[in-house]
Amino acid sequence: MTRIGILGYGNLGRGIELAITQNDDMELVAIYTRRDPATVTIGTPGVPVKPASDLASGTEPIDVLVIAGGSATDLPEQTPTYAALYNVVDSFDTHANIPEHYDRVDAAAKEGGHVALISCGWDPGLFSLNRLYANCILPEGTDYTFWGTGISQGHSDAIRRIDGVADAKQYTIPVDSALEAVRNGENPELTTRQKHTRECWVVLEEGADEEEVRQAIVTMPNYFSDYDTTVNFISQAELDRDHAGLPHGGFVLRTGTSAAGTPMTVEYSLKLGSNPEFTSSVLVAYARAVARLAQEGATGCRTVFDIAPAYLSAEDAAHLRAHML
Amino acid sequence: MTRIGILGYGNLGRGIELAITQNDDMELVAIYTRRDPATVTIGTPGVPVKPASDLASGTEPIDVLVIAGGSATDLPEQTPTYAALYNVVDSFDTHANIPEHYDRVDAAAKEGGHVALISCGWDPGLFSLNRLYANCILPEGTDYTFWGTGISQGHSDAIRRIDGVADAKQYTIPVDSALEAVRNGENPELTTRQKHTRECWVVLEEGADEEEVRQAIVTMPNYFSDYDTTVNFISQAELDRDHAGLPHGGFVLRTGTSAAGTPMTVEYSLKLGSNPEFTSSVLVAYARAVARLAQEGATGCRTVFDIAPAYLSAEDAAHLRAHML
Repeated sequence: MTRIGILGYGNLGRGIELAITQNDDMELVAIYTRRDPATVTIGTPGVPVKPASDLASGTEPIDVLVIAGGSATDLPEQTPTYAALYNVVDSFDTHANIPEHYDRVDAAAKEGGHVALISCGWDPGLFSLNRLYANCILPEGTDYTFWGTGISQGHSDAIRRIDGVADAKQYTIPVDSALEAVRNGENPELTTRQKHTRECWVVLEEGADEEEVRQAIVTMPNYFSDYDTTVNFISQAELDRDHAGLPHGGFVLRTGTSAAGTPMTVEYSLKLGSNPEFTSSVLVAYARAVARLAQEGATGCRTVFDIAPAYLSAEDAAHLRAHML
Repeated sequence: MTRIGILGYGNLGRGIELAITQNDDMELVAIYTRRDPATVTIGTPGVPVKPASDLASGTEPIDVLVIAGGSATDLPEQTPTYAALYNVVDSFDTHANIPEHYDRVDAAAKEGGHVALISCGWDPGLFSLNRLYANCILPEGTDYTFWGTGISQGHSDAIRRIDGVADAKQYTIPVDSALEAVRNGENPELTTRQKHTRECWVVLEEGADEEEVRQAIVTMPNYFSDYDTTVNFISQAELDRDHAGLPHGGFVLRTGTSAAGTPMTVEYSLKLGSNPEFTSSVLVAYARAVARLAQEGATGCRTVFDIAPAYLSAEDAAHLRAHML
């Protein structure tokens, strides 16, 4: 059994707790929280909720700590700290800062003699894998990534910060015609506006002006001004009823040619009923790989690029060759 | 530079020769053939065509031998033989015999101190990878594989063996409605007939009877009797003009749920203008991985499941983290 600890109990922490129950070789040992543990009720009977400070000893009985924090402030601090003490997995997703994060985690993990895996999930993660495989196999070609249909937490938060907005959800939607043009091998050069649209569902505070809020949204730099944005106003009850989920997904395509000029298209897509639950399932599969690497005596930081696929499976290599190859 | 030898110069051998030209770190050193080398004209100026018997010395100046033979009779004999002498890659695709092939190649490669990679290409190969990744991440779910639209060489050959047939090509075509039902998460149980149709383009010999040939095709056990098959009769000139290519592709899907019952769909698809050219591109990327493993001192047989994705790339790990993750 691989003994897993989870640090953090938000959407991702709950997803990891769920994912562990689908893997018979994994055992949830404890959930660690920065909140008062007495205020945290979890889904798994008998599993203790402990203060995050318990981890500092380096002696918690876990094979892998899955760190379910945010990329903005939590993970840059938590992952190096805990990589010095335990084998760890995180889902650090600020693409531009991955090299710096890697270096800090790698140094800490090597110092502590542990294995760390960073930037795991679906993007970065499975989407990255598909970009890499397709690039290696089709060296001459073009990459395209489309996201959605799915809830963008960052964009939803940005709308909620506007005066007069009580609540909001924002969907990122890939433009079908752009996706079709890529699939047809037309090799289009696509602007931001041509790739995705944004659809907003907004609950106004009493007395707020629809048109003012709409303008504040659609002109917001970075978030909306470069997109065709639709704004819909609904009641809180409707928002809660129709937009409570966290669906997401997307498409990674590479179109290229052989040296003879023959066209080839590789496409990977995800349609996820729950972004955090799927991300968690990826983290748990990679936690298995990390535990194995650590057993083999490996140390230092890894990404999904460095993990042979067989390490993710509970089945042995002979079984995989016979049944999946 | 990774020095590559190719054994066999049919469609696959020519594809490998082409794929090497798209990879600046790879060099084609020689093509080995069982035919009289004087009768084999290749596409790369200055590269020698040598008799396959030259390989027996174990001293040819190559880092990896890519074996471009057939799975029925060539590879079961060639791959173990040459794995004892060189690092090798093959595309052995008889799924049921992979475990036996693996054992024989593994023993030979270990004995000779070399690395072998078997069953590389897109199915087995990239499709296998996608089955494995999706199964590890969604332990509760169902796998679906659809092939096509593409030319099946085996089915085309089977038609050509019928009395009265001068030439023929057969397309395997996935049934759109079945694919859509899977994508919609309907989790259908699909019979052979419901998943694929077969479309035949047949040139008759003079005096042959259309209806007799049609009946011989559509009732042929194993090949056609379990499918809805369309038979079209055309002239040799039309066949040569419209059906000369070797396109193929297909779809690997896994639909599953999280432990909370939330639906998830993972889909991978390939649309290939040329089956042998794409397969060759995969073989060449994995030849790079094999050369690296050998440099690290590894020995024995591998499959795509055992190869960390970063080994396929000419770029170093830091570059991949910065640009592809």
